Amino acid sequence: MKTITINASKTYDVMVGAGFFETSGDIIREKAGGQTAAIITDKNVAALYGKALKTSLKKAGYHVITFTFAAGEASKNTDTYFSLVSFLANENFTRSDVVVALGGGVAGDIAGFAAATYMRGTKLVQIPTTLLATVDSSVGGKTAVNLETGKNLLGAFYQPDLVLCDVSLLGTLPEDVYREGCAEVIKYGIIADRELFESLEKPINEQYENIISGCVKIKSEIIAQDEFDRDIRKILNFGHAVGHAIEARSGFTMSHGKAVAMGMRVETRAGVYLGICDMECFESVRRMLESYGLPTNVSYTENELAAICMSDKKRDSYSISMYFPEKIGKCKIADISVNDLKTLIKQGLLD
Amino acid sequence: MKTITINASKTYDVMVGAGFFETSGDIIREKAGGQTAAIITDKNVAALYGKALKTSLKKAGYHVITFTFAAGEASKNTDTYFSLVSFLANENFTRSDVVVALGGGVAGDIAGFAAATYMRGTKLVQIPTTLLATVDSSVGGKTAVNLETGKNLLGAFYQPDLVLCDVSLLGTLPEDVYREGCAEVIKYGIIADRELFESLEKPINEQYENIISGCVKIKSEIIAQDEFDRDIRKILNFGHAVGHAIEARSGFTMSHGKAVAMGMRVETRAGVYLGICDMECFESVRRMLESYGLPTNVSYTENELAAICMSDKKRDSYSISMYFPEKIGKCKIADISVNDLKTLIKQGLLD
Repeated sequence: MKTITINASKTYDVMVGAGFFETSGDIIREKAGGQTAAIITDKNVAALYGKALKTSLKKAGYHVITFTFAAGEASKNTDTYFSLVSFLANENFTRSDVVVALGGGVAGDIAGFAAATYMRGTKLVQIPTTLLATVDSSVGGKTAVNLETGKNLLGAFYQPDLVLCDVSLLGTLPEDVYREGCAEVIKYGIIADRELFESLEKPINEQYENIISGCVKIKSEIIAQDEFDRDIRKILNFGHAVGHAIEARSGFTMSHGKAVAMGMRVETRAGVYLGICDMECFESVRRMLESYGLPTNVSYTENELAAICMSDKKRDSYSISMYFPEKIGKCKIADISVNDLKTLIKQGLLD
Repeated sequence: MKTITINASKTYDVMVGAGFFETSGDIIREKAGGQTAAIITDKNVAALYGKALKTSLKKAGYHVITFTFAAGEASKNTDTYFSLVSFLANENFTRSDVVVALGGGVAGDIAGFAAATYMRGTKLVQIPTTLLATVDSSVGGKTAVNLETGKNLLGAFYQPDLVLCDVSLLGTLPEDVYREGCAEVIKYGIIADRELFESLEKPINEQYENIISGCVKIKSEIIAQDEFDRDIRKILNFGHAVGHAIEARSGFTMSHGKAVAMGMRVETRAGVYLGICDMECFESVRRMLESYGLPTNVSYTENELAAICMSDKKRDSYSISMYFPEKIGKCKIADISVNDLKTLIKQGLLD
């Protein structure tokens, strides 16, 4: 078991280990308290782990209520959000009770946004069940739902009270969902840790505890400096400006992880064009992504992607701040004018 | 002009004075920046002050967009909130742009919640146009909308970047709306400032600048200690536990201010029952409320009110923390068990 402490507006622990899921109730009781625990999860995850979590929470003395929704990104909308907060209100849930998000990024984001806003903030525990959620959405306090006009347009910065990553839950991941998480892990290597990047030659799922705790540690150092995404935290968006555009262009039929893999490929190649990194760096990135079965060929045009980037939330009024790798393990920021965006993406699409 | 600086998670100024409304644009430009200013206001206030504010913002270089809604508490719901954030998204509003809430508590609360959650937080300026909003909702960062099951059940703590109180805007207040604000001003006297309380023998609207800045100063000291309403800030809820129940029991046809006036009357009388204050204190409170034409007779029963209190957001799981005056200008907290609530309200309804 490894414990990483996050120092943000709230200080909390991320516990990474194997086989402690069935004692979750006691850990949550100790770290978050409250009378009622509301498990928020999608129907697929509920079938796999819902019962065990409920049993553990009950054993720890909680009154347990459960809210489930249809699995998939399409559920991350204002309808699910309003249903969820209305459910909490009807159950007389209070701000000292605890929301337990069980699942991937969708469950974590919706449950987190509900916990952030129901009665101006309840207790919150994240139990990620996908590799992506363990290293990405469950840590750091970004919560959100999508609007029709764009992804994550409604949300809040709201830190959890505890994050429990039991890597034995990741054993049931479908290949596709596993790969999504790999994309995000590779990102951490590129932006901050050459050694981590090189260790990925050995499959991630043969060394979950080390890899996940390594990524969370990188994230914790970034969040301690910039919880509210004003400057250095934007480094975590490497691959995401273009990645989000690809995801949106696909009508959100493409997974976040695949889109980010393509985004990293495009943004690194654009970095070569800008003279920030060399072709060897680009080839390392592309090779690593492909070794995990991630896509690096983009079928959309620069016109399509630039238009979407411009309406994306990372757009400041006239420019977009983006990080580009200088070499594996080190990135630098550049302000890209909205006018230059199309050319940059065009260059990023080159081989 | 008096300026009170609020020291919370964000540091910002509350400017209280007369006749500076038409220079708002320049002040907002200096303190909040951004390219686009979104004026959020109800249709009544839009007719009175919307044009002047728009002109001032344009003069200061802003691109100005306006969102209006039907006046009244009934608009403070998730539909208006959702329309507002969709409007911002369709206008390509960004997180560095500025939301300007112009109006009473409803405008401030909805616009504040939208600013708190749109792209996880935009710039926010509050321009209160009612006495109640100047001393209550515009300062301190509480934002919210109502759910069908209860008032203010969705919301966030989100501090503005600036609050502009031009007391000359208060000249157009209908008598009823003025009285609402008086109830809240009287509350500040009771909980924290005997001198302020005694100064209210002279009508509030003959001394707006002094009274409002005095109330904001009291609030600023409380918020500096407890921004997130965990302990001492609950002192501001004096009169509100019962007041909210009265407001809810009326189906929200009764104004917040009248309900809080009745709530303070009931809670002070209950304080006599608990041995916290004496009848002289209760009589002072009642006399002051009546001198401002505020109601102090409650026609609902203890059964009706206790049931609503128990579902109110200030309910912890088994008890409610309430402040009671010991004497005018000084309060103390008591934890009221849910089981004792009905008896307490019954006693509070006595003459």
